[in-house]
Amino acid sequence: MKKLRTTIKDIAEKTGLSITTVSLVLNNKPSRIKSETKELVMRTAKEMNFQPNQLAVSLISKRTQTLGLIISDISNRFFATLARGVEDECGKNNWNVILCNSSNRHDRDLKYIQLLANKSVDGILYVMSADSDWEKAKESCALMHRLNLPFVMIDRIIEQENNYCVLLDHKLGGYLATKHLADLGHKRIGCIMGPIHLSSTVDRLDGYKRALEEAGIEYDERILYAGNYDIEGGIAGMEYLADKNVTAIFAFSDMIACGVYRQLKMCNIKIPTEISVVGYDDVLINDILEVSLTTIKQPIYEIGREATKQIIKVIEKGTVVGDKTVMFKPELIIRNSTSKPL
Amino acid sequence: MKKLRTTIKDIAEKTGLSITTVSLVLNNKPSRIKSETKELVMRTAKEMNFQPNQLAVSLISKRTQTLGLIISDISNRFFATLARGVEDECGKNNWNVILCNSSNRHDRDLKYIQLLANKSVDGILYVMSADSDWEKAKESCALMHRLNLPFVMIDRIIEQENNYCVLLDHKLGGYLATKHLADLGHKRIGCIMGPIHLSSTVDRLDGYKRALEEAGIEYDERILYAGNYDIEGGIAGMEYLADKNVTAIFAFSDMIACGVYRQLKMCNIKIPTEISVVGYDDVLINDILEVSLTTIKQPIYEIGREATKQIIKVIEKGTVVGDKTVMFKPELIIRNSTSKPL
Repeated sequence: MKKLRTTIKDIAEKTGLSITTVSLVLNNKPSRIKSETKELVMRTAKEMNFQPNQLAVSLISKRTQTLGLIISDISNRFFATLARGVEDECGKNNWNVILCNSSNRHDRDLKYIQLLANKSVDGILYVMSADSDWEKAKESCALMHRLNLPFVMIDRIIEQENNYCVLLDHKLGGYLATKHLADLGHKRIGCIMGPIHLSSTVDRLDGYKRALEEAGIEYDERILYAGNYDIEGGIAGMEYLADKNVTAIFAFSDMIACGVYRQLKMCNIKIPTEISVVGYDDVLINDILEVSLTTIKQPIYEIGREATKQIIKVIEKGTVVGDKTVMFKPELIIRNSTSKPL
Repeated sequence: MKKLRTTIKDIAEKTGLSITTVSLVLNNKPSRIKSETKELVMRTAKEMNFQPNQLAVSLISKRTQTLGLIISDISNRFFATLARGVEDECGKNNWNVILCNSSNRHDRDLKYIQLLANKSVDGILYVMSADSDWEKAKESCALMHRLNLPFVMIDRIIEQENNYCVLLDHKLGGYLATKHLADLGHKRIGCIMGPIHLSSTVDRLDGYKRALEEAGIEYDERILYAGNYDIEGGIAGMEYLADKNVTAIFAFSDMIACGVYRQLKMCNIKIPTEISVVGYDDVLINDILEVSLTTIKQPIYEIGREATKQIIKVIEKGTVVGDKTVMFKPELIIRNSTSKPL
C-alpha cells in the first residue's frame, strides 16, 4: 500500500482513548477532556505524523489552499523574483504554491494546466510562454475555463479579453526608456524587442513610438528587431543592427541587454561612448558588471504579491471588487550605460 | 461542481456510439471498428478535452508519473539549470515535474514534502534547505520515508546514510580551486564558505586543506568565514577578511563571489592585481562582468538529468543497480580573476 496515512482511529488505538475523544481534541471542539489527555492526543498525533484528511477538508471548503504558478523561463531572474513574491504572500495566508516552468513552450503550458487541475489546485497564476500567439493564448485560457480553474494572468495578457491581469504599464515603460535616450540627443534608437505577438512587446513599442513622435524623430521600422526575451535574442538583434547606424539601443529586457553587451564586447565597441544601451526589468547584479545598466525597473516582487492577493480573492469570493486589471508603474533607473551620442 | 471531467460516457452520448466502442478506441484495443469511427471518437475526445481518468490509471500502475523537485533558492541560477535538466529528462520519459522553492527554510521543506505527498507525486528530488543541520536533514528524510516517498538527494547529502544521491565530487572541487591559487604563489588564501553543517561545505573545505598541505602552506582557521551560499554571504565574508592580509579568496559559490566582487569594488580594490578570486559553480554570464570569474564548473544540467534517471529507476524498479551515490567530476575554468600575488 502506498502512502499510508495516520487516521483518528490509529491515534485512538495507540492511546487507548475513544475515537470521539481523539476527534474532539484534534478538531479543537469544546469539551471537558483533561489537559493531560489533550496533550497525549496532540503528542501522539505529532509522533504519528497525523494530517487532517485533505479530502475531508476539501469536501467542506471545496478548496485545497494550493495555487499553481506557471512561469515561462526559470533562468531569468525576473521569474525568480516573481516566484518569491508569490510564495511570501501565499505563506502569509497559509496557502501553498506549486511551480511549473514551461521553458517558453506552449505545449508545456497546456500540459501543466492539465497537471495542476489533476492535482486539484484552486487557481493558477499564469505567465504564458513566449511562443503564445493570440490563438495559443486563447487556447490556454479556454482550457483553464473548461477546467473551471480561476486564473490571473501576469505580465502577458490578451487584449480585449475580460481576464484578471496584473502587470506593468509597459506603454509608459517603453516611453520612459526611449524618452531618456531622445533627451540625451539620440536620433537613431534601435529596438531589440521580444516576440511581437506578446502584449508586453506591443505596449513597449507603443511607448517607443510616442516618445519618438514627441521628440520629432522619424519612426524607422528597419531599426526594429523582434526576437526572444533572452540573451540569444540580444545577440541576434545586435548582429542585425550592426550596420544600421544606430547610436543607442533600447533592449526590451535586461536579458536582451546582456546579449547586446556580449556582442558589443566581441566587436570591441564601447558602452556608452560609442553606443548607449537601456534595458528593461532591473534584474541584473549591476555592481559586478563592466558597465552598470540603465534600465526600466519593474516592481516584480510586488507584482507577484498582488497577483496572489487577486487570485485568492477570486477563489474565496468568486470575484474582486473594482478593475480586473491591476497596473504597476515603471521607473527609469539611470546608471552608466547611457550618455550623449558622439 | 468543480472540475467537471469528460468521461467515456459523455463521448458516447455526443457521438451516438456505444460506450464499448468508445472505450475500445480510446484504449487502443484491437477491434474491427472502422477508421472513420475511430477518427470521430478521437476528434470528439480532443474537442471535449478528454483525459484518461487519473485515478483509474493510478490504480493500475500505482503511479502518477509526477516528480516533485524541491530546490533551496530559486534566485540562484544553479537551481534554474538544475530544474531544466530535470524537466528535459522528465519530458523525454513522459513524466511531469512540480517545483517547490524552500527559500532555504527547513520548515518549508517539511511543508512541501507533505504537500507533494498529498498531491500524490511518485518521488522527490531533494536539495535540502541551507539551514538544514544534521538533525533537520534527518527529519526531512524521515518524513519522506514515513510517507513512503522514494527520494534522491542532490548536491547536499547526509554522510553515512544510505540514501540515493547525485552530486559533484566537492572534495576534488575544493582541491582544484585551492591548488590553482597555491600554484600561482598565494600563501594567504581566505575561504568564504557556505553553512558549515552542509556536506557540500565540509567537502570543499576538505579539498582546500589537502591542497594547502601539499603546497606546504599552514592552515589558519582565522581566514575562514562561514555564511550562506549567496551574495550577502560574500559581502559579509569579505568584510570579515578585510584586515586579515589575504591575497586570494576561494568563494564557495559564484553567488558568494558576486558579493566579494561587490565589496572589493566598494573598497576600490582591484581584481586580480590586488586580490585573486576563485568561484564555484560556473553560473555567471562572464562576458558582461567587469572581470570574468575563474571558477569550478559543475555539470549542473547533467546532474539534474542523472538524478531524474535515478529516481525514475527507483520508482519503477524499486532500486538501482550499482552504487547509490553518483558523483560527477568538477573542472577548473581559468578566467581573468586570478593572477600571481603582488
